Amino acid sequence: MLLSGGLDSAVVAALSAEEGFAIHGLTVNYGQRHSAELDAARRVAAAIPVDEHLVVRADLRGIGGSALTGDAEVPKADSPGDPVAADIPDTYVPARNSILLSLALGLAEARGAERVGIGVNALDWSGYPDCRPEFIEAFQQVSVTGTKAGVEGRAVEIHAPLLHLGKREILAEALRLGLDPSITLSCYDPGPEGEACGLCDACRLRNQAESQLAEEVGR
Amino acid sequence: MLLSGGLDSAVVAALSAEEGFAIHGLTVNYGQRHSAELDAARRVAAAIPVDEHLVVRADLRGIGGSALTGDAEVPKADSPGDPVAADIPDTYVPARNSILLSLALGLAEARGAERVGIGVNALDWSGYPDCRPEFIEAFQQVSVTGTKAGVEGRAVEIHAPLLHLGKREILAEALRLGLDPSITLSCYDPGPEGEACGLCDACRLRNQAESQLAEEVGR
Repeated sequence: MLLSGGLDSAVVAALSAEEGFAIHGLTVNYGQRHSAELDAARRVAAAIPVDEHLVVRADLRGIGGSALTGDAEVPKADSPGDPVAADIPDTYVPARNSILLSLALGLAEARGAERVGIGVNALDWSGYPDCRPEFIEAFQQVSVTGTKAGVEGRAVEIHAPLLHLGKREILAEALRLGLDPSITLSCYDPGPEGEACGLCDACRLRNQAESQLAEEVGR
Repeated sequence: MLLSGGLDSAVVAALSAEEGFAIHGLTVNYGQRHSAELDAARRVAAAIPVDEHLVVRADLRGIGGSALTGDAEVPKADSPGDPVAADIPDTYVPARNSILLSLALGLAEARGAERVGIGVNALDWSGYPDCRPEFIEAFQQVSVTGTKAGVEGRAVEIHAPLLHLGKREILAEALRLGLDPSITLSCYDPGPEGEACGLCDACRLRNQAESQLAEEVGR
């Protein structure tokens, strides 16, 4: 299970734990701007709880090409964004989910795991190419053709149970599973104490979902 | 261009340089047993020469599952091997080429490159699932579906020009391209000074190819 420290991947892991799976958590330290993400991933791993939590360093900063790994500013509400590709956010990290999934696929195969869990979901589709169903299907074929397990007819499944859910539904799942959303961190640009900025795309989506859910529960 | 320090990837890079491409070399330090591989990659990068050589650390030792990243012994001539999956060598690293290709895909996209070069070839097919044409095709779909470049209709090509060549033909290409094979290192288990062991699968294949070629040239 890929654990970013965010809400989505925490819910994916909690769902598989609910199904009775042993969980091997994998957090990739790809040179994120903030160790707050790693701290959040460790809190999530302890809360599930996972059977193993591996933090692998893969330094993508030399590769660059993203506001999340480089020095560029994280876009905030009303910031201009990239005029060349207005529909793909500056926070897109080149081939990020391919990198995360292949590392997770390696771990899954080494541990004899049945599936790799990833928290991609409907809301991400609009912006990130590597969060769409067609990408998940393509990566499934990588698992089938490119691993010993796949060749032997027991390919690791790329499991993305939130693929068709929105943020509000994911938040509702978290609450149903007894997962405290406050231990997770979705923010792209947290403050020095790991506090959410409240202004980046991730914060705005999450705050919107929390308001909607609070409204529905209050109704 | 993925540069392992071995002969195959060096030939792939030299071929693209011959075609006039600017070359961005990527060497992944995945916790190889020996820094000799990294030294060889640097020699190859200087010989091509490449326009950029990036060494990215992605520590796969925590993942394990292979004689090349773990503590297990590298299989030598006449060693028993893994009885469970006799046809896939112990030197198989779980999902290795998926990991290498996704890192290279990220670099290619960040640099606006047209292709990712990888040195997989016919001889590897017998043993490694992630060296087969069906795997390369599956990964091509990852590039098409999972990247900004792919969505925008200019997907990075996964370029494997040695896919259908044997070791002898690759060695002949190296000589034609003026690439000195002695600067490269194919050995899985080099000695303290970076010298080839002569006994592992990689050494045996290479020595065999060199003998064949010497015989043909002498004829």
